[in-house]
Amino acid sequence: MAETLEITGISASPGVGVGRVHLAADITADALALGETLAAESDKLRRAVATAIAELETLADRSDEESTGILDFQIEMLLDPALVEMAEDRIVAGDSAALAWFGALDDYIAGIEEAPDEQLRARAIDIVDIRNRVLSALTGRPLEDFAPGSVFVGKDLEPSIFLAHDWTSGGGIVLFEGSVSSHVAMLARSRSVPMLVATGRFAVPAGVRLLVDANGGRAVIAPEDADVREAKSKTPATKPSAARREGGVIETADGVAIRLSAIINDPLELKAVDPASFAGIGLMRTEFLVTSPADVVDEERHYFIYRHALEWAGDAPVIVRMLDLGGDKTLPGLGARRSESFMGLRGIRLLLARPELARAQARALLRAAVHGDLGVLLPMVTVPDELDAMRTFFEEERADLSGSGVEARMPEIGMMVEVPAAALMLERFSRSAFFSFGTNDLAQYLMAAARDDHSVAPLYNAATSAVLRVIAQGMALAETMNKPIGVCGEMASDPRHIPALMAAGLRHFSVTPNRAADIRSTIGALCSDGRTVAERK
Amino acid sequence: MAETLEITGISASPGVGVGRVHLAADITADALALGETLAAESDKLRRAVATAIAELETLADRSDEESTGILDFQIEMLLDPALVEMAEDRIVAGDSAALAWFGALDDYIAGIEEAPDEQLRARAIDIVDIRNRVLSALTGRPLEDFAPGSVFVGKDLEPSIFLAHDWTSGGGIVLFEGSVSSHVAMLARSRSVPMLVATGRFAVPAGVRLLVDANGGRAVIAPEDADVREAKSKTPATKPSAARREGGVIETADGVAIRLSAIINDPLELKAVDPASFAGIGLMRTEFLVTSPADVVDEERHYFIYRHALEWAGDAPVIVRMLDLGGDKTLPGLGARRSESFMGLRGIRLLLARPELARAQARALLRAAVHGDLGVLLPMVTVPDELDAMRTFFEEERADLSGSGVEARMPEIGMMVEVPAAALMLERFSRSAFFSFGTNDLAQYLMAAARDDHSVAPLYNAATSAVLRVIAQGMALAETMNKPIGVCGEMASDPRHIPALMAAGLRHFSVTPNRAADIRSTIGALCSDGRTVAERK
Repeated sequence: MAETLEITGISASPGVGVGRVHLAADITADALALGETLAAESDKLRRAVATAIAELETLADRSDEESTGILDFQIEMLLDPALVEMAEDRIVAGDSAALAWFGALDDYIAGIEEAPDEQLRARAIDIVDIRNRVLSALTGRPLEDFAPGSVFVGKDLEPSIFLAHDWTSGGGIVLFEGSVSSHVAMLARSRSVPMLVATGRFAVPAGVRLLVDANGGRAVIAPEDADVREAKSKTPATKPSAARREGGVIETADGVAIRLSAIINDPLELKAVDPASFAGIGLMRTEFLVTSPADVVDEERHYFIYRHALEWAGDAPVIVRMLDLGGDKTLPGLGARRSESFMGLRGIRLLLARPELARAQARALLRAAVHGDLGVLLPMVTVPDELDAMRTFFEEERADLSGSGVEARMPEIGMMVEVPAAALMLERFSRSAFFSFGTNDLAQYLMAAARDDHSVAPLYNAATSAVLRVIAQGMALAETMNKPIGVCGEMASDPRHIPALMAAGLRHFSVTPNRAADIRSTIGALCSDGRTVAERK
Repeated sequence: MAETLEITGISASPGVGVGRVHLAADITADALALGETLAAESDKLRRAVATAIAELETLADRSDEESTGILDFQIEMLLDPALVEMAEDRIVAGDSAALAWFGALDDYIAGIEEAPDEQLRARAIDIVDIRNRVLSALTGRPLEDFAPGSVFVGKDLEPSIFLAHDWTSGGGIVLFEGSVSSHVAMLARSRSVPMLVATGRFAVPAGVRLLVDANGGRAVIAPEDADVREAKSKTPATKPSAARREGGVIETADGVAIRLSAIINDPLELKAVDPASFAGIGLMRTEFLVTSPADVVDEERHYFIYRHALEWAGDAPVIVRMLDLGGDKTLPGLGARRSESFMGLRGIRLLLARPELARAQARALLRAAVHGDLGVLLPMVTVPDELDAMRTFFEEERADLSGSGVEARMPEIGMMVEVPAAALMLERFSRSAFFSFGTNDLAQYLMAAARDDHSVAPLYNAATSAVLRVIAQGMALAETMNKPIGVCGEMASDPRHIPALMAAGLRHFSVTPNRAADIRSTIGALCSDGRTVAERK
C-alpha cells in the first residue's frame, strides 16, 4: 500500500469530498508598488470601490437569502467612509491607490486577526474579500477562481470566492486557520460542501488528489480509492433522539426540565436556526457588529439587529451580551494601547471607560426591549460597582429616551461569571438579575494561561477540574440568591463535561447551534444529578 | 501665605531634606550621531570600557563595603562580553562607537524596564549608569554632577552619581519613577539621604527650593520656612517594641509562635540585614542574578551567591526561588516572543521549556545545599506534573554531580501558590515539600487585572478579599497535608492584612527587611486568631 499522509482539523461543515488541490494565491504588496501613476489616485480608488459595490450587488441579486446577508455585510463595509479614508491618508503620503488600499486594509485585517475574540477574528476574511475585490477593480487582476471539483487549500477562504465558485461538481475546503463561525463556514454548511478548519500549515503540491473527510475531522493526501470508499461509507451516525421533548426544554431521565438556549455569534446565523429548537438565545454576542469604529456607536444598526433577534425568538428570552472588546489590537481607534488585553481594559471595563460606547448600546437595547423578552449580559464584571455603574447608564438613557417620547423598556441586567474573583464571591452581586458562567475566560485566569498562547496550551486545556470546582462554589453561593444561573463556553458544548455541570446543579445551558443535537441527547440520557440511570442503581 | 505645591511619593529612605532643585540631564542619541569618525570604532569602544572599569575600581577602593558591592556589580556587567558584542554588531552596521554603545545599551535597558518583576526593573538604572560612564569615556562629556545641598529631581538616579556626590551638606532625592529596592535606594538609606520614589512626572524649575519630607511621603515645591520646620519637628514615631521576643520568632498575645523570614531581592541587601532578626530567608529571588543572558546559566555565580546566603543565615533555613522570568521583553534572548507575559511562558513553564536554564540553576542549588538548610521554591506551578518534571531535573543533575565527585545534596522542593487553580486544588500537590502563597500574582489572576496596567489598577487594588478567600480555602485543603505553609507578597508586608492572614491560620510570614519592624509589632499585639486581646473578650 502506498504511503498516505493524514492531516487533522476541525470539521466546519460535515461530509466527504475528494478532488485535486487548488492552492490559494498569496497576494503581497510587492506587485503593487510598480506601474501606477501618482495622479488622481484618490479618484481611482473611489471608482474602484464603487465598481466593487456594484459587483457585490449583482452577486447578491443572484444569491439566496443567506448569501445575500453576507454580501450585504460586505457592501455595508465598503459604504463606510472609514476604510476609504484610511487608504486616502496613505495616498496623501505618496502611495499609489492600489498600494494605499492594500496597506490600509492589511493593517486593519491584522488588527482584527489579533482580536481576543474568535468570532471577531472570523470576520477578518470578509475584509480580505473586500480588499481583493477592490484591488481587482483597481489593477485588472482577476479574482481567484479554480476548477470545479477542486479542493481549496489555504489559510482562509473569502466568502465571495466561495459564492462565485461552482460547487456542484464536489470538492471541498481545507483551511490552515479559519473558523467554524466564519461566514464561509456557514455557507459551506448550507451548501453541504465538506470543510475542515484549523489544520495548521502543511505542505501539499497543487494538483495532487486530496480526500476531505469532514465527518472524521481529517484530510488524506493522495488517498487510495479504498480510503475514499471507506470514508464515504461511514455516514455520520444519526443522533439518538434521546431527548424526551423537542425544543428548548429537555427532560432528564428522572424528569427534571433543563433549558437549552442558543449562542448566536452573528445575526446571519439566525436564518439557519429553528427557533423551536431552543429556549431562546442564551448569549448573543455583539462584537460582530463592530467591524469598523463607526459601527460601535451606530445605535440604529444595533437596534435593528436586536429587534430582529427578538422577533426570531418570539416569546422566548433573548440575552444580548454587551460589547466584549478590549485591550490593544481589537479595532483601530478603540481601547487602550496595552498588550495585556486579557487582563486589561476589556469588557465592561472598556465600556465604563468609554461611556459613549456603553450609552449607544444601552439606548439600542432599551428601545429593542419593547419588542420581546430581553436580557442584557455584562462581560468581565469583577466588582459590584461595575454593575451599578452600568445600571445607572441604562437608567439615565431610559429617562432621556422617555423625555424624547421614544418607547423604551428597562431590560433585566445580568452578568457573566468569568473572572475568578466574581465566581468566588458571587454572593456580593445580589443586584445582578441573572448569572452566566463563561468557562473559557474562567479557564484562562484560573490557570494563568492565555487561551491564544500556544506555548501554554497544555495548561489551558488542563483547566477543566479547576473550572468545575469554581462553578460548584459559585452555585453553592448562589443557592440562597434565587437567581437564574446558566453556563456558556466550550465546556457547556462538550458532552464530556455535561454530567459534572449537571451535578453542580446547572439547569440552563447555552450552546452554539451546531452542538445542540449532541448536547440535547447527552442531557436526555442523564439524571439531573449528572449520573446515568445505571449509575444511580 | 504663598501658594505651595505638594507632590506625593513613596518613601525609599526616611528623613527630611531641603535644597535647590537639580534637574537630571537628559541624554539622547542625537548628540552622538555627529563628530565621530568611523575608523577603529571597535577599538575605541573597548578602550572606553576599560577606562570605565578602571574608574569604577578606583571609586570602589574609596568606598565602604556596601557601595563596593554595588560597584562590583557594575564592573562585572562591563566584564561580560555580551554588552560590548551587542554594540559591536552596530558598529559593523555603520554606527560610530558612541552611537553603537548608546543604542545597544538603550535597547537593553528598555528590555529590563519592561520586565514584569519590579526587582529586575530596579536594575535598569545600573545599566544606565554603565552606559553613561562608558559614553563619558568615549566622548569626553563629563558625568553629571550637581552642587552639594541640592535636591536631585529626575526619572531615576544612577548609583555612581550618588556615590560621587557629596551628601554631607544635605539635600535629597525625588524620582519620578525609581524603586525602593534599587541600589541607589539602599545607598540612600545607609547614608540617611531622604529619598522619594514613584512621584510620577511633575514640572519644577531648576534652582527652586524643594522640601523632601520622606517621613511623610511628600515633597513641597517652594516651601515656607514654617513648612520646613514643621516637617523636621515631626520625627517618625519610634516603633512600639510590642514583639515579645527578638529575632525571627514572634510570640502572639496568646503565646503562639509566628515565624518571620526575610525576603531578599538582591544579595547586596544581606550586608544591611541582621540575621538574628529573622528566621532565615523565606524567599530569595534569583532574577537579580540575570542582568545579561550569559548570567542565566552561570552556575558558579549562582552557587557563590546561594552559598553566601546560607552562610549569612547560619542554622536558619534559606529558601531560594528559581528564576521567575517570562514572556517577551524580560531579557534579550530569553523567553518566547509573546506579549501576554503574565499568562504565558513564565516561571517554571519557561524553566521546563528551556531545560539548560533549569539544570544550571539546579546544579548550583544542589551544590549549595551542602552548606546549610536550603529549600527551593518553584514559581508559577499550575499542575503537579510541573513539580515532578523539575524534581527529575534535580535528581538527574544530582546523579551527574555525584558521578563527577562533586559534593551535592538534594534540597527540599516546594512551590509558590500564586496560580488560582493551584490554590483551589492544593491537595493535588502532595509531592511539594512546602507551600508559599504569593499574593501579588494571585491578586492579578483572580481579578483578571494585570498588576502593571494602570487602567485596571483600581480592580487590582480591590483584590484583597478575593485573595483572602482563596488563601483560606488553600489552608483548609492543606490542613491534612501537614506541610509548612507561609505567605509572601505585598499583603504579608501590610499590617492591615495581618489579622486576616493569621485568622486564616498562617504562622509563617516573609517580608522585605524594611517592613519587618511594623509586621513584628503588629503580630506581637494580636492573638493567634488575628483578633486583639480586647476583641476576644
